[in-house]
Amino acid sequence: MSLDESTQEAARKPHDRLADWLAADMDAVNGLIRERMASEHAPRIPEVSAHLIEAGGKRLRPMLVLAAARLCGYGGPFHVHLAATVEFIHTATLLHDDVVDESQRRRGRPTANLLWDNKSSVLVGDYLFARAFQLMVEPGSLRVLSILSDAAATIAEGEVLQLMAAQDLGTDEATYLKVIRGKTAALFSAATEAGAVIAGADEGRVQALRTYGDALGIAFQIVDDLLDYGGADAALGKNTGDDFRERKVTLPVIKAVARANPEERAFWSRVIEKGDQREGDLEEARRLMDRHGAMAAARAEALDWAARARAAMAGLPDEPLREMLEDLAAYVVARIS
Amino acid sequence: MSLDESTQEAARKPHDRLADWLAADMDAVNGLIRERMASEHAPRIPEVSAHLIEAGGKRLRPMLVLAAARLCGYGGPFHVHLAATVEFIHTATLLHDDVVDESQRRRGRPTANLLWDNKSSVLVGDYLFARAFQLMVEPGSLRVLSILSDAAATIAEGEVLQLMAAQDLGTDEATYLKVIRGKTAALFSAATEAGAVIAGADEGRVQALRTYGDALGIAFQIVDDLLDYGGADAALGKNTGDDFRERKVTLPVIKAVARANPEERAFWSRVIEKGDQREGDLEEARRLMDRHGAMAAARAEALDWAARARAAMAGLPDEPLREMLEDLAAYVVARIS
Repeated sequence: MSLDESTQEAARKPHDRLADWLAADMDAVNGLIRERMASEHAPRIPEVSAHLIEAGGKRLRPMLVLAAARLCGYGGPFHVHLAATVEFIHTATLLHDDVVDESQRRRGRPTANLLWDNKSSVLVGDYLFARAFQLMVEPGSLRVLSILSDAAATIAEGEVLQLMAAQDLGTDEATYLKVIRGKTAALFSAATEAGAVIAGADEGRVQALRTYGDALGIAFQIVDDLLDYGGADAALGKNTGDDFRERKVTLPVIKAVARANPEERAFWSRVIEKGDQREGDLEEARRLMDRHGAMAAARAEALDWAARARAAMAGLPDEPLREMLEDLAAYVVARIS
Repeated sequence: MSLDESTQEAARKPHDRLADWLAADMDAVNGLIRERMASEHAPRIPEVSAHLIEAGGKRLRPMLVLAAARLCGYGGPFHVHLAATVEFIHTATLLHDDVVDESQRRRGRPTANLLWDNKSSVLVGDYLFARAFQLMVEPGSLRVLSILSDAAATIAEGEVLQLMAAQDLGTDEATYLKVIRGKTAALFSAATEAGAVIAGADEGRVQALRTYGDALGIAFQIVDDLLDYGGADAALGKNTGDDFRERKVTLPVIKAVARANPEERAFWSRVIEKGDQREGDLEEARRLMDRHGAMAAARAEALDWAARARAAMAGLPDEPLREMLEDLAAYVVARIS
């Protein structure tokens, strides 16, 4: 590779490089997903599933399984099952999230609950959960089953915690961390850990990859929460200001509230606790966050978690996949740098 | 036991006799359920779960696991985990069903979606599903995991199929059978099969207990669907006429429609397909069912399935538990005899 080509290569998104590197595996994953989301009797199931699964999601979670397994030298077939499993769990949670949040758009398209109805989203989500559990049984690894069923419980608990923390200005950063570990990091860390375990990696590598996934997921979610206040971001395919309208108490809100004067507290109480939101309130929220450096402080935390993710990879083999995963951690926070 | 005591014993409901026989096991199951429905971080979870789990459900499904395991000579601890698993799966499906059906009452109490909200019901249901999967992993039996994860997929598929079959007068008896296998029989048969498998029973007994659970579940659901047209039945703790109002195409409707003259077809089309229901329509539906013997024909099918359940037990050891399971099959249909 010439220097020029090498520079071009480095400038490509780490996600795309991962996708290229793992292309054959991902083809197998996509084939398995298509096969298993079918239903002999109920055509509504593949209709709803395909609407979401084929809407151009980044397939980040299945790629984490594949990358972890390959980085640990796996040569068997079952990383594909586990990759499809985490994509099914992810898709099921998105279907249920959109019902819970009454969302209208996802990945730039109308949500399933809007195109069909809440009933279909709830039940097809349940079907995908069940299919995920069938898939994860097939490799025959009880340890992998523990990892993934624990993750499913952490995800659901995090979602309930988020529901309770919404509209509650008493939510602190520790609770916020539990919520985002549940809603995002649990599946990231289960993906990387399960990939390492199925490859028979030693305990040090298993823990390193688990730590990587956890930190990457936390960084990813803090960034997502920041971008929700970060102005128009059409690339996300979701509306900015959603969290504000849904009165979710995310990290920049927690930091702004902690530093609020009495007048500002009254503002936060009105818009988040009482839900009395008026024209210009979102802009006012952004202004208060800026005034107290809440956005900058949250950004610093995201960068710190990304650094932890990169650091966790130090003991893994120095191969292209490791570099791509390190770059991925950097890239996730580059959106806010 | 004197003849008098023996007669009294026989007259007790088989369900109560099972509960007495399995009392120590059921105490362990209830303890495990209470322990596992807890959540360190999200108190909403045990609140919602307990509302439903402690509302005096019959615990029929966990008892089927315990009875099957004990009948096959099991002496280990894991039938308790599997019993709690099926109760969690059952509770999760009830929470989601009540959202999907917009139900107001369940087991004689307001539904969770009414007391809290749909969001809590969806997410706590997801949590219980995940907890069920954690529980079923613990015995370390891959075959049991296959049985229970297959059942979860069949349940979800049956629910979606029911959603699509609702309002569709083209629904035939074969589709109806798939729906009720999904919504009821799949978990019954998984319960009895998993109990036999964890006990290490031979293949003949495993299949016999699976067949028993399947046939019992089908009989149970046909009876339930009949009773929904069977007049006031306060003991069920649910409103009769629910299925009619929700435009579900259950067995008595299918049979009445199959024998309808053009005028009657117009009636069914109006109330089920178009959903234009007026005062007195439920009574008219009952009258049309009676006229064509639809209720009697459906009742005969329920009795036939109950007989199949009893017949399946022939090869099992001739012990009190076997007799109780046989009596249970008879009792399930006695409600409509």
